[in-house]
Parts: sequence; structure tokens; C-alpha cells
Amino acid sequence: MAQTNLVTRLRAEVAGAFPAPAAQPTATARTVIIAVSGGADSLCLADAVVAVAPEQNLAPIIAHLNHQLRGEAADADADFVRRFAEACLVPCHIAVVDVAEVAAQTHTSIEVAARQARYAFLAKVAADAGASLVTTAHHADDQAETVLMRLLRGTGIAGLRGMQPCAPWPDSTVQTNLKLLRPLLRTTRAEIERYCQDRNLQPRHDASNDDSTYTRNRIRHELLPYLEQYNPGIRAVLARLADSATHDLEIIDYATQQAWAALAQPTQPHEPRSAENAIRLNRQIWQTLPQGLQRATLRFAVQQLKGEAIDLKYSAVEEARDVLNSSAATGEIALLADVRVDVGAKVFCVRRAG
Amino acid sequence: MAQTNLVTRLRAEVAGAFPAPAAQPTATARTVIIAVSGGADSLCLADAVVAVAPEQNLAPIIAHLNHQLRGEAADADADFVRRFAEACLVPCHIAVVDVAEVAAQTHTSIEVAARQARYAFLAKVAADAGASLVTTAHHADDQAETVLMRLLRGTGIAGLRGMQPCAPWPDSTVQTNLKLLRPLLRTTRAEIERYCQDRNLQPRHDASNDDSTYTRNRIRHELLPYLEQYNPGIRAVLARLADSATHDLEIIDYATQQAWAALAQPTQPHEPRSAENAIRLNRQIWQTLPQGLQRATLRFAVQQLKGEAIDLKYSAVEEARDVLNSSAATGEIALLADVRVDVGAKVFCVRRAG
Repeated sequence: MAQTNLVTRLRAEVAGAFPAPAAQPTATARTVIIAVSGGADSLCLADAVVAVAPEQNLAPIIAHLNHQLRGEAADADADFVRRFAEACLVPCHIAVVDVAEVAAQTHTSIEVAARQARYAFLAKVAADAGASLVTTAHHADDQAETVLMRLLRGTGIAGLRGMQPCAPWPDSTVQTNLKLLRPLLRTTRAEIERYCQDRNLQPRHDASNDDSTYTRNRIRHELLPYLEQYNPGIRAVLARLADSATHDLEIIDYATQQAWAALAQPTQPHEPRSAENAIRLNRQIWQTLPQGLQRATLRFAVQQLKGEAIDLKYSAVEEARDVLNSSAATGEIALLADVRVDVGAKVFCVRRAG
Repeated sequence: MAQTNLVTRLRAEVAGAFPAPAAQPTATARTVIIAVSGGADSLCLADAVVAVAPEQNLAPIIAHLNHQLRGEAADADADFVRRFAEACLVPCHIAVVDVAEVAAQTHTSIEVAARQARYAFLAKVAADAGASLVTTAHHADDQAETVLMRLLRGTGIAGLRGMQPCAPWPDSTVQTNLKLLRPLLRTTRAEIERYCQDRNLQPRHDASNDDSTYTRNRIRHELLPYLEQYNPGIRAVLARLADSATHDLEIIDYATQQAWAALAQPTQPHEPRSAENAIRLNRQIWQTLPQGLQRATLRFAVQQLKGEAIDLKYSAVEEARDVLNSSAATGEIALLADVRVDVGAKVFCVRRAG
């Protein structure tokens, strides 16, 4: 069968999502786990990854989790994925988890339990196979939904980035170097369906498109179609917004690092506090920074001391900024219950307290 | 009548929107033009500005343009504003423009013609009075609509900022130092209506809330109420997004300037091209910048040469980046028909061509 333009283009997009292969032709193939439900999205992904595997020096493994949520249909999905993998000559791992039971035991929703079970399963398959890459079939329509959902809930530029094409492993409770690749993030659902037609793939009904959370379901089936009345290209608009937010945040992170390098002062050797518990910053340089960088550097100081700055309130940062910017003021300010700022005339010190 | 909490708070917000008054008690009062339609928004604004004028050392002037779009009702609006100004002991300028006629003559829409006529009138009143400040009554609900309208149309972080509380004069064809202040940009329409009740102001029906463009009208009367089903606080969410985008863009502008200072090289004295027609940049430093700053600095170079970079295409910037980032490549690239880049090993030169 002749390869259509769409098939060629989509495969090139998928190939480009992987880190460039090693230059030596003798290099060991890189194992990549493909999460496959059996629906159109993941079937398209699997077909494309298998097709580009030789040129990208990839060794794909297909992984399927049976959530036991839909009785015989779920068993049939698993059989379908197994036969698809066999036809592709690709190893296949299938596991069964009673998600409803787990949700009841852990007092979480079915959606949360299913997601956790899926990522735990994928991480285990990857670890057993010595793989450092996992791919999922999130696509441009999913991305538009994610951006819109975050917009509605309230977000800044970090949230507007949506899902990342190459992200650290999403379950932070697992210590891992695993990377999550989303090669279809710029491909629309309509293109995926056309790919499946062009390749004569016959996907199963994708249950994961039904059983998602209530809000996402409404956004997919009501809000996005409604917004298309205002702009038929709304999905592409949201995907582009995610792209531009990603690049903007890169600049902001870079600017924060540059500012930090100019601000940070070595801890005085005679000071009793070790560098891990106290950070000395040049107040005069800090005062010259734009508001946003004043906030970002205070937040970064808390991150350095505590590992994260989730509890840091906007109002506490603004109060600290007021004192640090008023030329005469010196003294002590609380950023958090256990993080204080000693304000000197030329230097201020962010430190753990108590 | 006792002053309610809302009246006190809203006036403090309005007072804070003006640049701090000069310290000397003998300083001349600063003239400020208040655009008043007679509707709730602008009546609230005028009442608050007049109230804070003594402490802020302001000399307010009320300005009203009769668009002649609604016959007798429009004349009654003008009378109403004149009487309101008299009661406040504030000078009042009223002018009449046949907006429908202007629109027909200039082949523009009524909305565009009305907006142009309004800004031209306000600029004239300001010039005649020697004023450098004009205030309008745009509020938080207007801001939410603006942000949402831009989101739907497609925008990056610059567009997400929405309207600015203090902006250069919006009509760039007028050479002026006039500033446009929007003191009510964080005040909701509901708060404005309560203010009018608390102050016993009886506004006219605000025609400007009806005659706005079709899209804005639908966003106001259909989309925003619909989105409130997803998040009742959607207007506040959009206003906060505008705020955070404003601060983020400040950081990006600052980072671009810092990068520029590190990149820009003096033009060699023996070179035939003058500095205005050619900009030499350090290629090695440029290569270390994050993608977003590579784009921003190329764009900035074009702005320096041409005054603006509106025609610069994303694809042309990406092609230039490809060449500049590949270590071996030297030669010439076109950014625009009349702007080229000479790529040397360590330095590249953005210059006007032809």
C-alpha cells in the first residue's frame, strides 16, 4: 500500500520527538515503552513508533493495562492489543488491576486510581526492561482541553504550557530517570483518525475517551464545540498558546537564574549558619530588579532552602517586597512559619527558622 | 451621608491610579480629563476622581461626546452630564459628532468611527486644557472580556495582559505625551453599581454597553455567563491572568535588554555602514541564549533598524536561528526583503539591505 502524505508527515513528527540516536551504527537500540489502550490514538502512536524504530534505533515494547472496569470488553481490548503487537513483532506486556477495588480501598476516585495504576504499571514495565523512555498518545485536542481546563480554573504562564512533549516522570513519588514522551502533541484527533484509515488500522472503541473526569468530559463534548462558534480554529489557538507559554517560561527561568547569579553572596565563614540553612543576597542589586524577578528570586530562595515553595503565599512575598524596597527599613520578616528574612542595609539573608 | 466601606475602598483604588502628587503644597494642580458617557461606569469614575482631586492635587475636567446615534436620548445624555458637572463644580466640555456620517464617509464601521471620534475629541480637550492625563471607566468585567476575546482570537503573553491601568495614548497617529489611565480596571461592574447606589447617583442607561461590536456583545451576554457554570469566579480568574501576564512580560522585556547589552558590539570604525544601518552581535554569546531570547533579540535588532518588526515572520526567524546555531555555517540570510544577516564565525551583523 502506498504511503499517504499524512502517514509520512505524522511519522516524521513522531521520529522527531525522540532524542537523536547515537552516531555509531553499533550502538545498542534504546528501549521505549508504548502505552496502548487499543483506541485510535494509541494504535496510531504504536504503528508510527514501530515504523520509525529502525531509523531511530529504538526497541519498542507495547504495554497495556486492563483496568477491569468494563468486563468482557476490557478483556477483548487486551486480546486485541496482544494480537496487534504480535503482528508488529513487538514484545507486549499486559497486566490486570481491579481499579474499582483499589479506588474503594484508597478512598480515591476511579479516575485517580486508574491514572495511578497506569503510571505505576508503565514505570514497572520500563524498569524491568531497562527502558528510560515511555510514550503516550496525548494529542493536540487533549492539549487544547488541558489548557482550557487550566484557564477556567485559574492559572499563570506555567499552567498555560499544558502538557510537555518531553516531561519528567509524572509520578513524583517514584525515584526515576524515566522520561515521558508525547510525540502526538501537535497532531489533531482528526489527523489520527485519518492515519488509522490510511493504514487500515481498526481501533477498538477508546474507553479512555469516555471515563475521564466530569469537567474534562464537559470541556470536550460541550465547551470546545461551543467555542468553535467563536473561532473554528480554537483548538489550534490553544495549542499555539501552550507553545508560546513554554518559550516564555524558558526566558523567565533563564532570567531568574541570571539574576540569582548576580544576587547570591557567599555565606560569611564566621557565621554560625551553614549555607544550606541561610542564603545571603545583595539587597541593592535586588532592588534594581523588575517586580516579577523580585518575586521569582524570593520564591527561588525558599525553594533552595526547603526543596519546594508550594506553601509560599503571594501576600507574604508582597509584604517582604515592601520592606526590602523601602530604603531605610531593616529588621526581620517572616516568609513562612519556618523561613525568615533578616534585612540588613546592603544585604538580606533568607534562612530557616525554628 | 456616611461614606460606606465600598465608597472608601473604591476611591482609594482610584486615588492610587494617579502618579503621586508633587511634594510641594504650592505645586500647580494637574489637569485630568474624565471621559463621561453618563452611564454607571463613567459616573462612578467621575464622582470618585472629583472626590480624591484635592488630596491628589488634581484639576478634573469632564468631557462628553454626543455621537448623535440615538436622537433625543443622546441629547438628554449630554444635558445630564452637563448638569452633573455643574453640581460637582467641574468644567465640562461637550461636543457633537455625526458618527454615522463619518462612518459612511470613511467606509468604516460605526464602532470604529465612534471609537476614533471619541479618542480624537478627548485628545483635543486635553491639548486645549494643557492636560497630560485622560481617564476612562474600563472596569474588571471589560478586562475579562478583552482577555477572553484575545484568547479566542489567538494571542501570546502580550495580548493576555489585556488593557493596561496606565497606557500610552491609544491613537498612535497622534504625536502626544498623553497618558490614558483606567483607575477602575480592578473594580467589577457589580461594585460600580453598588457605588452608584451608595452615593445616590442615578446614571443614564449606558448605551456604550449595547453598541459595542458583535463579538464583544456575545462574549458579554452569552459566553461569560456560560463560562460561569464552569467557574463562577471566571472574571476574576481572567483579570488575574492579565495581571500575571503583565509581570511576566516585564521579566521578558528585562531579560531581552540584559541579553542585548551582552550581545551588542560596537560597529567597527573602518566599516562603511553607519551604526543606524547595521548592528553587530556576538554570535557565541547569542548561541548560549534560550530559544525564546534568541528570537526576541533578532526581533529587537529588526526593531532597532526599522522602528518596528511587524512584518517579521516567525518562519524567517526560525530559518535564521537554524543557520546561526549550526556551528560551521557562515554566509548571508534574509530576515525581511530589506533586512539581511551577515553570518561570521564569531560575530553576526544585522543590516539594512537595498
